[in-house]
Amino acid sequence: MTQGHDNVDANADTNDSVGIVTPRMESFEQSLLLETGRTLPRFDLMIETYGTLNSDASNAILICHALSGHHHAAGFHLGESKAGWWDSCIGPNKAIDTHKFFVVALNNIGGCNGSTGPTSPNPENDNKPYGPDFPLVTVRDWVKVQALLADRLDIHIWHAIVGGSLGGMQALQWAVDYPNRLKNCVVIASTPKLSAQNIAFNEVARQSILSDPDFHGGRFLEQKTLPKRGLILARMVGHITYLSEDAMKQKFGRDLKSGNFLYGYDVEFQVESYLRYQGEQFSRNFDANTYLIMTKALDYFDPARDFEGNLNKALAPATCRFLVVSFTTDWRFAPSRSREIVDALISNRQPVSYIEVDAPQGHDSFLFPIPRYVDSLRGFLGTAKANILGHNVTKNAHLHADHDPSRAEQPLRNTVQNQQVTQEQQS
Amino acid sequence: MTQGHDNVDANADTNDSVGIVTPRMESFEQSLLLETGRTLPRFDLMIETYGTLNSDASNAILICHALSGHHHAAGFHLGESKAGWWDSCIGPNKAIDTHKFFVVALNNIGGCNGSTGPTSPNPENDNKPYGPDFPLVTVRDWVKVQALLADRLDIHIWHAIVGGSLGGMQALQWAVDYPNRLKNCVVIASTPKLSAQNIAFNEVARQSILSDPDFHGGRFLEQKTLPKRGLILARMVGHITYLSEDAMKQKFGRDLKSGNFLYGYDVEFQVESYLRYQGEQFSRNFDANTYLIMTKALDYFDPARDFEGNLNKALAPATCRFLVVSFTTDWRFAPSRSREIVDALISNRQPVSYIEVDAPQGHDSFLFPIPRYVDSLRGFLGTAKANILGHNVTKNAHLHADHDPSRAEQPLRNTVQNQQVTQEQQS
Repeated sequence: MTQGHDNVDANADTNDSVGIVTPRMESFEQSLLLETGRTLPRFDLMIETYGTLNSDASNAILICHALSGHHHAAGFHLGESKAGWWDSCIGPNKAIDTHKFFVVALNNIGGCNGSTGPTSPNPENDNKPYGPDFPLVTVRDWVKVQALLADRLDIHIWHAIVGGSLGGMQALQWAVDYPNRLKNCVVIASTPKLSAQNIAFNEVARQSILSDPDFHGGRFLEQKTLPKRGLILARMVGHITYLSEDAMKQKFGRDLKSGNFLYGYDVEFQVESYLRYQGEQFSRNFDANTYLIMTKALDYFDPARDFEGNLNKALAPATCRFLVVSFTTDWRFAPSRSREIVDALISNRQPVSYIEVDAPQGHDSFLFPIPRYVDSLRGFLGTAKANILGHNVTKNAHLHADHDPSRAEQPLRNTVQNQQVTQEQQS
Repeated sequence: MTQGHDNVDANADTNDSVGIVTPRMESFEQSLLLETGRTLPRFDLMIETYGTLNSDASNAILICHALSGHHHAAGFHLGESKAGWWDSCIGPNKAIDTHKFFVVALNNIGGCNGSTGPTSPNPENDNKPYGPDFPLVTVRDWVKVQALLADRLDIHIWHAIVGGSLGGMQALQWAVDYPNRLKNCVVIASTPKLSAQNIAFNEVARQSILSDPDFHGGRFLEQKTLPKRGLILARMVGHITYLSEDAMKQKFGRDLKSGNFLYGYDVEFQVESYLRYQGEQFSRNFDANTYLIMTKALDYFDPARDFEGNLNKALAPATCRFLVVSFTTDWRFAPSRSREIVDALISNRQPVSYIEVDAPQGHDSFLFPIPRYVDSLRGFLGTAKANILGHNVTKNAHLHADHDPSRAEQPLRNTVQNQQVTQEQQS
């Protein structure tokens, strides 16, 4: 088991990057029962870690990824110039400060970046790629696997679990399923469940892939082909929902690529060029079966479903502090969706801070270093710095308590809705 | 040439339907120069008319159709139970009252419902279907063709030109290109130009079709196949933009088709079932090349483009009265887009009434008989009933005047923004 700076280069501390990082595989030779009732005989997880785990393993932060994310969240792979997907927030002195915290990022099962997924060999089928035989997985399954990873890393309680979009759903599920195993939960640009419109967009993406003749019922690898057309369309429609209408207007407007109407079906408007490029790039690097699995996990997520739609009851087991973040121009998971989470937590007298960040980038905002957002994240995580150092234990005792049903009767604490987190929290 | 009740059955006056209607073809054996610079050697228009043209041909109303619309706007075709697409508004005593008005609806060129389009024989290629050789057409081209149809029908001045969505763009273009030929212009759920996001959705629809292997570069009819997959996807993504998020929530929510998660790619949520059904139906009846042509016409529409983006200047030639209608939950062409038109007209001191109708159906609202909307439409068109009968000529003289540049210096008249049209207008 490897922890600490072993995968961060020596220059990391001289700037705000964790530097060169090397992913590593954690293999689990144990069967995994999934929510669908199906079982994986074994699985691998591709992970990256940044920073150093302290002696009592109290400074670990788990980063959960979104639809197309993975374990490479910060720093650089050797020979590559593109930083990890959340490099803006993870690093020395950054919001998720690797001087203070031991940060763990992984590729979820079902993914296509090294963890066991549809492109992995299926031991029950002559080690041919799983393809469509890889079982559907749910947010709850991912959280279960992440808990096994935590066991492996000797992390009994996460200082925080943080995620945006689909990652935020995992953070929320952790708070419910393992209330004793996290102190802080950060749910960014997320929702307690998808709307009909969200599902509709996912369905268009899925049908794009499923109806591509090169998909071959998911066995395209065996056919030595790729459903590129389907993946391109899926990504194009996805991208429209990631950007706000205003962001698109600012970025492209009605600008023409050649300056004039061409009266044909080649690229005319810049926005067409952008979408085609995004789709093309994505189709080279992403597995179509993984895309299907990820969209289904999104559709299924609905922790209130077991409680007749009552989100208050669903979230009641959580004992951690929450930071919920939304962005004004996010129309995929609009602020009103985040507020559903906040309202449920407040009703339950659970400690929650909420910020609605004015940002033009739409759903993608969660990937940008927007000052108010980053400062709030830093402040929220930093409060617990005192806890790490052993201060304020009494003051924050409720944050560490095991789940106690009577807690719901305690007075409202630490709840801030629709306003910036307080200075105390940010310090 | 046929006008009047010849295509309306004898029972039409006993209820609010125009009854059984029969479309007819108007052929134009003349070449048509298009905005692209290309020429059609000849063309046919499939049209329907309802009501009777009066002796001085002053009671004619032109209905312009939207992306997938056509000439069958009201009544029933023999043996069919489905009414025309705007039957809710066109008929005896309806908002567009066929007791008073002679209503003309047509299928635009480039369409696939009988007018010359990609499925028509190409006289310059052994009468094989045009397919991809059919030229791109613009809103301005359609308006030019509609003016030729007006000539054919001896209609020198339309009492009104009415259209929703892409149809509204045609009505607006009429007001600019032929200011002497219409008295009233009704622009519903439309926009002076598409946004980057609108173009992005169109581009996804186009790429769905263009990348379907059965599209065969547009020559699918010669290959005896149909790009069904592409059309299904195009229609699915279109449908998401036609409905409001709230309408989808009300209609489907997260309802499951079987009551339980199936953990597969068959239909699980009702919204998936709805989209697939809509896509499937559409793909049977609509031509893929026409879909491409229609989306490009939408993208190109931008009357302000010739005036360095100045919509005021673009609309200045118009001399008709305007009714502009938007719907609160329309996110395809949001009320703010309609207000751009209204603001330009007000700046120009042109007579405009504007209503923003509170309706849950999103962009599709324009097809529904929403009382405030229908009453306003009736009232706006009815004002001119007086004109038809010869009253109020002096009062409304400006409505009939040829374009007079000095009109812009006249005092503001008849402009109502952001409020219901006045009782006078509705009476």
